[in-house]
This record gives sequence, structure tokens and C-alpha cells, in this order.
Amino acid sequence: MRILIIGGGGTIGRKVAAALGSRHEIVAAGRSGGDVRVDITEPASIRAMFEALPDLDACIATAASGGRDDFPAMLAADMLAGLNGKLYGQINLVLIGQHFLRDGGRFTLTSGMLSEDPAPGFMSGAVISGALDAFVRAAALELPRGQRVNAVSPGMVEDSLSLYGESFPGYNAVPMGRLINAYVKTIESGMTGQILREHG
Amino acid sequence: MRILIIGGGGTIGRKVAAALGSRHEIVAAGRSGGDVRVDITEPASIRAMFEALPDLDACIATAASGGRDDFPAMLAADMLAGLNGKLYGQINLVLIGQHFLRDGGRFTLTSGMLSEDPAPGFMSGAVISGALDAFVRAAALELPRGQRVNAVSPGMVEDSLSLYGESFPGYNAVPMGRLINAYVKTIESGMTGQILREHG
Repeated sequence: MRILIIGGGGTIGRKVAAALGSRHEIVAAGRSGGDVRVDITEPASIRAMFEALPDLDACIATAASGGRDDFPAMLAADMLAGLNGKLYGQINLVLIGQHFLRDGGRFTLTSGMLSEDPAPGFMSGAVISGALDAFVRAAALELPRGQRVNAVSPGMVEDSLSLYGESFPGYNAVPMGRLINAYVKTIESGMTGQILREHG
Repeated sequence: MRILIIGGGGTIGRKVAAALGSRHEIVAAGRSGGDVRVDITEPASIRAMFEALPDLDACIATAASGGRDDFPAMLAADMLAGLNGKLYGQINLVLIGQHFLRDGGRFTLTSGMLSEDPAPGFMSGAVISGALDAFVRAAALELPRGQRVNAVSPGMVEDSLSLYGESFPGYNAVPMGRLINAYVKTIESGMTGQILREHG
């Protein structure tokens, strides 16, 4: 397969590329690096990327999560930065990409545990991941030509323990190998409309 | 209790008001009718409403769902009308209202079955409800002074069968009495962070 990985230069993206690279052709895309440049907050940038990459069999997005919220002082509009990238960006990847991926093409998005297992200080992350999980279930009913869409929902990954461990006391860390396996499964299995939870 | 019902003039709002009215003081708010006017797409309008209503014990929002999507032709930005009202509007009701409701005050939002049980043509509704369900779980960890927040997630209500039945073949209709009971339960029980599913 010819597989596009958005965020292919990030922590998870690099490891997904390594896991799939022995059997597939990988194209890495990113805002500031990779084989192709893309800003997923801009629909025109997404469209230009797909136009430059014919014959893709799969598109994996490994979007990062946003930061902390100030719940007592915020309004919904303060979530916009996170919504634009992780939520609308990944939704537009599917809405635009459906017209470019081959028959039977696969989309894999990245949501997160916070939608089901929230933590104080991370309300926006919960909202974004809850919206993405629901999008995946709905979009699976809509995609044309046998295309499929799934989400991987990561918890706190072992590699991020030093960064985030204090924010998630009592949460079990997810072994990176399990998380990477989830991405591989969405590409090489026939599943669609599924949320692969790797919450630790 | 003194209970504010947003959308108190709508099909569900009127029946919730009737069910709670014998035991509580009801204040109905709406865009074009009710005791108080409010446009929940405008944070300033929400704030003015709460400033005019001191000593509220509860705030119930009965937001309507949006219409059909054109999945093959749409972009994420086309969801904005629905997002502004049902999603951001209800989130802002809680974010602003937390500073006005009494200690132990209760918020009840309205999401919908589409987040878990989607139907072709209604992707935006799925995304909005998925985001709301996740918001409720996250906000329950944040609210001050013993305040609580829950969502009622309605399926296709019996009264809407003639309008929506063709869009949801094989879905069971929800008896209106069950749905109204769910709203009552969120107000009179001690629950928080819960999604009350009345999906039929």
C-alpha cells in the first residue's frame, strides 16, 4: 500500500512509519518537515497535498493534543485553536481525502482517552476527542467506494510519562508498542467505524 | 428549586416545565418567547440572562438538533451553524452559568443518540452530541461549589415520528414520558457527569 502519514515526523508518527515501512510505501507529511508540507487547518492546503499524491491507499493522522484549560475563566471560543487543528483538521482530511483515496482506502485519525476518561484541566481535549470518536462512527456510514475510517484513542504513552505524569495521577501508561500496533491494525485489518482504545 | 429552562417554549421544554412545575418555580427562556429572552450563540446574551436571574438552582437546556449534511460535498466549516448553537451555546451556558448558579446548582444539557448510533446524512449531529457528552463528563470534574452537570441524550421521540421516521428506519421511537423523566431525574437526583440515554 501507499500510505500517507500526517505528522509523520512526530513521536508517534515516526514509529508508525517504521512499523509499516517494511511492507508499505510511506509518504510523510507535516507542517514543517517530511516529504510533503501540509497545514491541516487550511482546507486548501489539504486539497493541494492530495492532488500532489495520487494513488494513496491510506491516510493516517497523528495529531497532537492541546494544552491545559482554565475552566473557571474560559468561554467556548477559547477552545478554537485546538478545534481548528485536531478536530476540524482531521475531519477535513476525510471530507477532502474521500475524493482522492483509492477504492477501499483507509483513514486513521487520532482522538484520545479524555473523551471517556477526563482529567481536571483538560476539558477541551475531552470535547475534541469525543467529537472525533463520533465523527468516525458517522463517517463510516458515508464514505464512498469501500473506504474505511477508524480512530486510535491513545492514553498517556510511556514516552510522555515525564511530561504528563503529574497531570494524570493513577493513570496507567500505555506501552508505545501497543499504541503503534493499534495504528497498524486499522490499516491492515478490514475494520471501519471503530475506536481503538489504548488507554493503559 | 428555581429552575431555568432554555428552550422552554419548545416541544420538549414545555413538557419538562409541566413535569417540574408542580414542585418547583420555573423560568422559561427562549430566543423569541418565554419569561426571559436569550440567544445562546452570544456569550453576552447568556451573561445578561444570568445577571437578571439571581438565585437559580438549576439550568436545563433543550437545544434542537440540526438538519441534514451533504457529506460528499461539505467541509468542517459547514458544521458551524450547528456548532454555534447546540455545542458552543450549551458549553457557554455552563462556563458562564457556573458563576451564577447557587451552591449545588444543576445543569442539564441535551445531546442526542447520533454520537453513539449515527445515521447516514446526520454527521454534524453525531459530532455535536459526541462533543457534548464528553464535555459533560469533563465539566463534572471542574464545577465549583458542589454544582453538577448531566446530559439527556434523546433518540427519535414518538412525537417526531412523522417528521423523522423515514430518516431512521428500524430505530425505535422513545416515549415522550421516558424522555421527560430523564430530565426530571437529572434535576432531582444527585447525579453528575452522567449521560442519560433515552435512545428507544
